[in-house]
Amino acid sequence: MTSGIVANVKAQATRVFDTLDDGDATWELDPDRLLPLDEQTRAIARDLYAAVETMPIISPHGHVNPTLLTENIPFTDPAALFITDDHYVTRLLHAAGNPLAELGVGGAAADPRTVWRRFCEHWHVFAGTASGAWLRHELIELFGIGVEPSASTADRIFDTIEGRLTSPEMLPRELFERFRIEVLATTDDPLDDLTHHDALAQDTCFSGRVLPTFRPDAYIDPRVAGFHENVQRLAEHFDAPLDDYHRYLSGLASRREYFISRGAISADHGVLEPFATELDDDAAAALYSQAVRGALAPQEARLFAGHMLFQMAKMSVRDGLVMTVHPGVSRNHHAPTFRAHGPDTGHDIPVRTEFTNNLRELLGAFGTAPGFHLVLFAVDETTFSREIAPLAGFYPSVFIGAPWWFLDAPDAIRRFRSATTETAGFYRGAGFIDDTRAFLSIPARHDTARRLDAGFLAQYVREGRLGAVEAERIAVDLVDSIPRKAFKL
Amino acid sequence: MTSGIVANVKAQATRVFDTLDDGDATWELDPDRLLPLDEQTRAIARDLYAAVETMPIISPHGHVNPTLLTENIPFTDPAALFITDDHYVTRLLHAAGNPLAELGVGGAAADPRTVWRRFCEHWHVFAGTASGAWLRHELIELFGIGVEPSASTADRIFDTIEGRLTSPEMLPRELFERFRIEVLATTDDPLDDLTHHDALAQDTCFSGRVLPTFRPDAYIDPRVAGFHENVQRLAEHFDAPLDDYHRYLSGLASRREYFISRGAISADHGVLEPFATELDDDAAAALYSQAVRGALAPQEARLFAGHMLFQMAKMSVRDGLVMTVHPGVSRNHHAPTFRAHGPDTGHDIPVRTEFTNNLRELLGAFGTAPGFHLVLFAVDETTFSREIAPLAGFYPSVFIGAPWWFLDAPDAIRRFRSATTETAGFYRGAGFIDDTRAFLSIPARHDTARRLDAGFLAQYVREGRLGAVEAERIAVDLVDSIPRKAFKL
Amino acid sequence: MTSGIVANVKAQATRVFDTLDDGDATWELDPDRLLPLDEQTRAIARDLYAAVETMPIISPHGHVNPTLLTENIPFTDPAALFITDDHYVTRLLHAAGNPLAELGVGGAAADPRTVWRRFCEHWHVFAGTASGAWLRHELIELFGIGVEPSASTADRIFDTIEGRLTSPEMLPRELFERFRIEVLATTDDPLDDLTHHDALAQDTCFSGRVLPTFRPDAYIDPRVAGFHENVQRLAEHFDAPLDDYHRYLSGLASRREYFISRGAISADHGVLEPFATELDDDAAAALYSQAVRGALAPQEARLFAGHMLFQMAKMSVRDGLVMTVHPGVSRNHHAPTFRAHGPDTGHDIPVRTEFTNNLRELLGAFGTAPGFHLVLFAVDETTFSREIAPLAGFYPSVFIGAPWWFLDAPDAIRRFRSATTETAGFYRGAGFIDDTRAFLSIPARHDTARRLDAGFLAQYVREGRLGAVEAERIAVDLVDSIPRKAFKL
Repeated sequence: MTSGIVANVKAQATRVFDTLDDGDATWELDPDRLLPLDEQTRAIARDLYAAVETMPIISPHGHVNPTLLTENIPFTDPAALFITDDHYVTRLLHAAGNPLAELGVGGAAADPRTVWRRFCEHWHVFAGTASGAWLRHELIELFGIGVEPSASTADRIFDTIEGRLTSPEMLPRELFERFRIEVLATTDDPLDDLTHHDALAQDTCFSGRVLPTFRPDAYIDPRVAGFHENVQRLAEHFDAPLDDYHRYLSGLASRREYFISRGAISADHGVLEPFATELDDDAAAALYSQAVRGALAPQEARLFAGHMLFQMAKMSVRDGLVMTVHPGVSRNHHAPTFRAHGPDTGHDIPVRTEFTNNLRELLGAFGTAPGFHLVLFAVDETTFSREIAPLAGFYPSVFIGAPWWFLDAPDAIRRFRSATTETAGFYRGAGFIDDTRAFLSIPARHDTARRLDAGFLAQYVREGRLGAVEAERIAVDLVDSIPRKAFKL
Repeated sequence: MTSGIVANVKAQATRVFDTLDDGDATWELDPDRLLPLDEQTRAIARDLYAAVETMPIISPHGHVNPTLLTENIPFTDPAALFITDDHYVTRLLHAAGNPLAELGVGGAAADPRTVWRRFCEHWHVFAGTASGAWLRHELIELFGIGVEPSASTADRIFDTIEGRLTSPEMLPRELFERFRIEVLATTDDPLDDLTHHDALAQDTCFSGRVLPTFRPDAYIDPRVAGFHENVQRLAEHFDAPLDDYHRYLSGLASRREYFISRGAISADHGVLEPFATELDDDAAAALYSQAVRGALAPQEARLFAGHMLFQMAKMSVRDGLVMTVHPGVSRNHHAPTFRAHGPDTGHDIPVRTEFTNNLRELLGAFGTAPGFHLVLFAVDETTFSREIAPLAGFYPSVFIGAPWWFLDAPDAIRRFRSATTETAGFYRGAGFIDDTRAFLSIPARHDTARRLDAGFLAQYVREGRLGAVEAERIAVDLVDSIPRKAFKL
Repeated sequence: MTSGIVANVKAQATRVFDTLDDGDATWELDPDRLLPLDEQTRAIARDLYAAVETMPIISPHGHVNPTLLTENIPFTDPAALFITDDHYVTRLLHAAGNPLAELGVGGAAADPRTVWRRFCEHWHVFAGTASGAWLRHELIELFGIGVEPSASTADRIFDTIEGRLTSPEMLPRELFERFRIEVLATTDDPLDDLTHHDALAQDTCFSGRVLPTFRPDAYIDPRVAGFHENVQRLAEHFDAPLDDYHRYLSGLASRREYFISRGAISADHGVLEPFATELDDDAAAALYSQAVRGALAPQEARLFAGHMLFQMAKMSVRDGLVMTVHPGVSRNHHAPTFRAHGPDTGHDIPVRTEFTNNLRELLGAFGTAPGFHLVLFAVDETTFSREIAPLAGFYPSVFIGAPWWFLDAPDAIRRFRSATTETAGFYRGAGFIDDTRAFLSIPARHDTARRLDAGFLAQYVREGRLGAVEAERIAVDLVDSIPRKAFKL
């Protein structure tokens, strides 16, 4: 494989590594990170990014715990902050051979410093991943860490972080301000009393908007763990008989109203497939009464879940909650881990997803209903160009969800823009969604999206597909008017 | 998210927008549009493009109405010309909240100037889309429009276009010449008498080749609307009993011959799935007689349609018509819109497509039959590298269709070349197909394809994968010998 | 389509082709081939590539015949060497209209020089393909060919190659050394006595490691041709009754041990779908005794094959053989060609593949079993980001296989890295696999992978996603520690 030809070339090539032989001594954020490689294009992208870099963050869907902000107490330790509760992170450590229990997952006892060392020793497994980039951003920007995590730097970094955690500027509310978060939506159980949201709304010391999101999966799909207890709690809440289908429906509608009264703008649906169909009232009631007795066959359960997804759309048409759908993830793939550590422990795995046929009945009924908004997310990239963009290119109700979960990373975001823009343009999107439970990662995620959109637009400018002013307007709209419109903000 | 690091960089960066603060004042076509970003690669691409830029257009599949050329009367108005009849355009306006009726779709009464204003006010929704690029090309190149459409420029642009429509150089036949169209195929009903094609062929004042295409979907698939009336008209045409399967088959064969006598080179099949199978004669006859009575169950209808696709292949082997297959689109997704405005109104949505198993029986029978040509199109991109390129890389009969419909756009065309070339090379393709009913967009579409192919080849040259002369030969072949061979021209 | 604007640009553009009007006179390998287009990125990539360019080749999965090395006799002629036995090559010649028999496929008599001429006349059909690139690499690097194959150069090239074939430096063992192959795994029948592997291991004149691979498909899937004869031979080998399920299982386990004693590191499974399930012992035994009588219905055969794939995993957990799975190819698509010329004749066509559900039971049982290694390959690219990377990002046992078969080409390899890295990083891969039966192409294939990885890493460095030293370490690990770990070398 060594060809004589190569030797000559090497002699001419600038030896990039010559000056770096002692390692990546300085660990910092490249100000041009994620911008296009070509210099002319990069220059355009820099300007587009500058136009949006410091704009407020609109985060209309995510999983931050509202108590973080009501309690506003310091984060406990680096391991809890960055590792234990983030299944994006623990899954890669697990794949590298670290048992979840030793990382403190699912409440297992684990010494924070030991967990942190384990993480730093395995820093190389995060190279090139989205999680690695977010962690790097957070460590450098928020904690001023200037050395790469490794076995030899682990303790030093741990101490530095721990030292800063108690400083007032690291309190959650301070960070909320500093992050320029304008709106933050949480995701909540339909029977949640939303006292934390109330408290925040009434707190004169806190000006941020923190909105609840209605997430009824475990109340409307008999296949989801907890369904039976949930509908029972719902019936009790309304003092209704358990198997009264109409009281069940009106109970759900009532809880939606409660959420709306507390500022909710959307209802979120994490379904295995986006299948929706409407059964007639008697058939639905009959399936429901079997469902509460746990007596449904798999196909019947699917049918009832599809019927209820249809009902949720109908309620959205009535009450105005934006309907978001996050389909296509097979949850808790590894049964032994689920039994030992519970859900959200890193083994939710995507499956193929189908929208065109599954949503036909729902869109036939509500696709052009005034005010109905349906945001479609996907972890199956093949649907972006084939199904989601064509649907959003016709139905005024359909908005294209940002690339989700495993796809919320630079290359995947580029593929997403490339797959959807030519069919649906920029204005059928719903803006970037961070979808995170890791509060500290919010700025890193939105910054990533802004840089990539700037780069994507810059490429179109350099290709003669967009004017520079047009591109700048789109860049701004992508972080401002587009999410506001889709989420009715 | 604002990092101190960034400020420094911004100071150094060229402020691209500084000179453009007053908007994209000049609206023009970048002569380098769609060429690669890297300058060295762009230089190579420029030369490759120059080699094919003015070569004649071969358009072996499309939907232009032949009466346009027989009548050769001026286009009526800007709205009819660019908006109302183009469901690529009306779908995006519809998604932006404009009811189709207000755009004049499906024969609804609508004032052209009002429709035009609506379009110009929504110009931003076309940013980045294929339709936006074609429209821009047409407005600038054909009508000399130098300002971007907007609420404030709408009337001015309308008047300019209207003023030019009556000029002799804007007559369809003049444009046909000016566009350098060598061959244009239309798509026609099997019982069409093709008098317009006859008239054009015999008109000594018109030298262009305008060929009919045999499109039998609504005669061979009982699930397609109009099947019953069509087979009835077919039987009447041949004075045959309706339920005589053999007369039905021979009638179709006879109409193919008629098309061939009028210059047809291909038969086109717009199927939901490319499923083909051969039933024995008695079984087929039995299903047919049920089909004409509308008595087929869904699975039987699928079987009969699969049998008829097989028969069409068999006829192609005999009569030499190139068989083109356009599968994978679920038609008329939104039933209310279909009822109100008819078909081709912007809500045909792709679905997953499968070729390997569906075509196995057909290719087992005819895959190496001398002279048999089968061109496979797809709106499911996943099939390009997985199924279509491998099939075309073995079967001499299989040709790779150009990226179709939602995929006939720059990024998608690049993905297509990348997905097919490494497995099947350049010479198993069928050339670019515009597939359009928008006559004025034909040059823009072919120009786009030529630029992208030039860019793709230039990249391969710069990567040492092709020699420069080799690349130039391929660029020329892609617009000339390759479509000629695939379509027997 | 000719716009006045373009003329101006063309005048300014460097005329790349002006100096090349007489053809690509010199045919050589670009030392920068496959490196990124952008110059700054290319400079980084050059250095990364330099770090791995001459490192030894680890080839843990392929199809080279071990007799090549035991016999160590000169290759016979250019046609046999490059064309007849390589179905990557013959399939494209077949697609271009050359009957396989005329190429000598499947033992058909064919004059080598005539076959070679046919190949050279059709050289253009290989432009842009992976096979074309490998062939070019081999012709230039190994045989010093300096002119492009064509009708006029065919004889000259044939004579040059033929002249060199008898030189001692072209003997297989010399090439093995020159190629710097450290480990080469073959693929073998479970009943193979592995005498060639023994001979090589004991040969003091040969220091290379040539390892067998256990490939049991035709012994464990009743749908595979030869199943019946194979299980019969297996039973005879162990002097066991044919329909004794437990002896059948223990026989397979015993053959695995035999392979391990001869250095085998992995067992390979070429299944249609990666479906695995465990039946209870009685049910499995019952299906087996029907299977040996050829009495299984298709669904039963699928079930038994799934059960046996599960058993293979269980045996891998016990005996430590790395389990590799190559699913998703529909074999022998064109029945007439299969009947005339046998298997591996160019018409194996990919189909959609599903991993998440198919592997759930297997991974539930063995996903975290100590020492279990499962390498997942795919020809369905959609699974890389959707299923394989997420699985490998959680299960310590799952390793991402290199892009396989139709995807072992530059653009596809780039798509693969982009699709898997952000979710699973670099350290969940299994290294590059050449999977070839074309011994001479091994260096070209590994060189291609090294160049593309260097380019991919260089892009990440330029985007601020990796440090330069970090990237260099990863480049080295990708060809060294990563395959060693995955394949337990």
